[in-house]
Amino acid sequence: MINTEKNGLYTDYYELTMAQGYFLQERHNQQATFDYFYRKNPFHGGYVIFSGLSEFLNQLEKFEYGKQELDYLHKQGFNEKFLSYLSDFRFCGDIYSFREGDVAFPLEPIVRVSGNVVETQLIESMLLNILNFSSLISTKAIRIRHEAGDRLFVDFGLRRAQGLGSMHASRAAIIGGADSSSHVLAGSEYDIPVSGTMAHSWIQSFDTELQAFRAFAEIYPDDCVLLIDTYDTLNSGLENALIIAEELEMKGHKLKGIRLDSGDLAYLSKKVRKRLDSDGFNYVSITASNQLDEYLIRSLNLQNAPLDVFGVGTSLITGAKDAALDGVYKMSEFNNIPRLKVSEDITKLSFPGKKNVLRFYDSENYFYADAVILEEEDKIEKIIHPHHKQKQCDPGNLKSERLLKPVMEDGKRVEKAVPVNQIAAYTKKRISHIDESVLRLENPHIYKVGLSEKLMELRDNIVFDIQKNGG
Amino acid sequence: MINTEKNGLYTDYYELTMAQGYFLQERHNQQATFDYFYRKNPFHGGYVIFSGLSEFLNQLEKFEYGKQELDYLHKQGFNEKFLSYLSDFRFCGDIYSFREGDVAFPLEPIVRVSGNVVETQLIESMLLNILNFSSLISTKAIRIRHEAGDRLFVDFGLRRAQGLGSMHASRAAIIGGADSSSHVLAGSEYDIPVSGTMAHSWIQSFDTELQAFRAFAEIYPDDCVLLIDTYDTLNSGLENALIIAEELEMKGHKLKGIRLDSGDLAYLSKKVRKRLDSDGFNYVSITASNQLDEYLIRSLNLQNAPLDVFGVGTSLITGAKDAALDGVYKMSEFNNIPRLKVSEDITKLSFPGKKNVLRFYDSENYFYADAVILEEEDKIEKIIHPHHKQKQCDPGNLKSERLLKPVMEDGKRVEKAVPVNQIAAYTKKRISHIDESVLRLENPHIYKVGLSEKLMELRDNIVFDIQKNGG
Repeated sequence: MINTEKNGLYTDYYELTMAQGYFLQERHNQQATFDYFYRKNPFHGGYVIFSGLSEFLNQLEKFEYGKQELDYLHKQGFNEKFLSYLSDFRFCGDIYSFREGDVAFPLEPIVRVSGNVVETQLIESMLLNILNFSSLISTKAIRIRHEAGDRLFVDFGLRRAQGLGSMHASRAAIIGGADSSSHVLAGSEYDIPVSGTMAHSWIQSFDTELQAFRAFAEIYPDDCVLLIDTYDTLNSGLENALIIAEELEMKGHKLKGIRLDSGDLAYLSKKVRKRLDSDGFNYVSITASNQLDEYLIRSLNLQNAPLDVFGVGTSLITGAKDAALDGVYKMSEFNNIPRLKVSEDITKLSFPGKKNVLRFYDSENYFYADAVILEEEDKIEKIIHPHHKQKQCDPGNLKSERLLKPVMEDGKRVEKAVPVNQIAAYTKKRISHIDESVLRLENPHIYKVGLSEKLMELRDNIVFDIQKNGG
Repeated sequence: MINTEKNGLYTDYYELTMAQGYFLQERHNQQATFDYFYRKNPFHGGYVIFSGLSEFLNQLEKFEYGKQELDYLHKQGFNEKFLSYLSDFRFCGDIYSFREGDVAFPLEPIVRVSGNVVETQLIESMLLNILNFSSLISTKAIRIRHEAGDRLFVDFGLRRAQGLGSMHASRAAIIGGADSSSHVLAGSEYDIPVSGTMAHSWIQSFDTELQAFRAFAEIYPDDCVLLIDTYDTLNSGLENALIIAEELEMKGHKLKGIRLDSGDLAYLSKKVRKRLDSDGFNYVSITASNQLDEYLIRSLNLQNAPLDVFGVGTSLITGAKDAALDGVYKMSEFNNIPRLKVSEDITKLSFPGKKNVLRFYDSENYFYADAVILEEEDKIEKIIHPHHKQKQCDPGNLKSERLLKPVMEDGKRVEKAVPVNQIAAYTKKRISHIDESVLRLENPHIYKVGLSEKLMELRDNIVFDIQKNGG
């Protein structure tokens, strides 16, 4: 939709003014490292599914300035020498990252970007824009998947999505566990399974509901899901669907399903199931849609609503009630000197230096705790709570893995993009290592994330320096 | 970002299966009319600013199927004859619409689409995707503008926006009253003013805060807004900013402003203002950012916080806490026969027939009431409440205007796209005709929207028919 192959303008204005500042002061070859991390779990939950990495790297490969972009910046008053520098600009730095689809927790560096200060700064807004949103939606999707259990769960959100955000969102929904999407462009772009049923307008375009159903069944005899609430769910829609089910059987086909899109879904689905079964159509599935989210699905389950497919729109595709993940991108090193940002709020203190994350497994192969460490560290003896030093634990000889791995070196991708279905499978596997109490919808068990002793010392020393010498 | 110039896949899967159904049944040349309308005002407010029309028409002009799109649909199993039909497909229908930037109310047809049933059906998802989101954000923006009064109000949302939804959102924010955006790509695409200050990372990249400020002031002596909360707002940031203000004055420049991005904005802004003024820098502006929305701005105003610029991010760009406008697209006519959708919920009954909207002005030139009428109607004598017939009013000889006007005829735009700043000016003008009680943030006065007698009769007759004869 955006007619530019080069997307160096996909950024905030201040990134460009700062970049020009670095350049005009001849500091643009100085090296910096930034961390991407978030502070607060969305949806009152206990974790985030990190996604969007591959999309981010795709866009990063196009983060350049062509004539059109430079002309625009010229009109905005940017310096000619700087524009000439931008005309050759490409991101040539290194990126370490969690694997896309992994589980992440607050304060952990999930992505680490190193390079010259201009390239690391300019890409901030795009990185945050893509990773924050995609991770939000994957996290929402896995919550819905958690409640949907092994029933089908389909993304119906395009019409309520935030414009073209629908592209990232449908992809992210699959990573978090949606089975398919109604969004054809996302399906085509990301090789995502697409699906759909019929709308009320199909039925309205015929003189009677029965004619409308029959016409659809004629064209799609093996893939016919009838929407039964256009006029009267139980007295008209269901009765007509039963006639079609009968007719399809006589022709050697089977009615695939019916869909409920209004009314009390628990009440109606029970009535419909009972009638379908008593008429011998126990194979006909029931799809529910209409303002569903993880809470409503849980409630329907508690009422034993006999639903087979959940079509989820607005809440999935926008991450409602939380519209954004609060991920930030903070400088942790400049010219090889560790840096941090102090804040009036101690919990907003950032972690200095080039870091990695160790994830420990307990004896039952569940994730036990994560430790943020300095990149040069390997084994650690203590994991220290980031704000309450007296809270510590000893990982002992527990098995661990290093989560930040190179995904881009000198601006080149280390490996090819992973297909979306493989990322989704990875997410499913990773989540199976997490204790159920952490996955709870509300008031989850807090998963342990701490710092290594060395990192804690480094942070304390820098804070002490700042307090002594001022900013 | 999406590498296709043709965007016929920007739709839900079921639109395509239904379109194929119409085609295979040789009904694809039958004529249909659909209405776009919404049911519930977002943000507990009293109105919506309708926007996104021009973006929608732009995308509609590219709603086609090239080889890549057809190959994809072929793989999905679509019929060859249908694909051959799609290869020549273009939207060639008629669109009537409210003017972009106008004020709209629940249940009013805001956009009316007529054409053959395939073209009117296929574009549903894209229409809803673009118009729902854009209107949501313009509505959010005008609420923020309402509280910000005549202070500057800037869109800082890119990093928390829902992916590429940021493009539509930044445009919509300007229509609703934002003065500028940090989002450079949107600025370039839509000719929107862009602006920005500096990030914490700029400051962190220097050994001291003072060095960082001084370097920025050297490069941008006339456009220097210093972020003063990296280390300690009052004890470090403010003091260093005062030094720079002094130095700039000595060189014949003026420090433009300081920015507060954390801490208690009411407390800090008062302290900062007082100090700036007592040191002779009363011209230095104060920008506030950090999780602002219309409620926080109102609260800051009630506390007399001396703020000059509001930078608003997440809540503006995502429309939090409401992530979506509930706009729908319903068939109102097929083969020249008026249609409607009944529902278990009487308030969800749609209005049949080709309609228009009359807006009446009272004697003080305020909007008095809107009436949904049949297109063929001109003068009406009664405006009847859509669900409570006993509630009626008589517009008498009040001046009125017709709100739905042709914007596309036979698939061609009637007039060129209106620049965003002109749409914003139109919104500002229109909103000045609305009583303050309707603009209230919460529990607004409900603006009157009713039906003409003829439309009410038509609806009653169709409902009666359906109840008598079944669907």
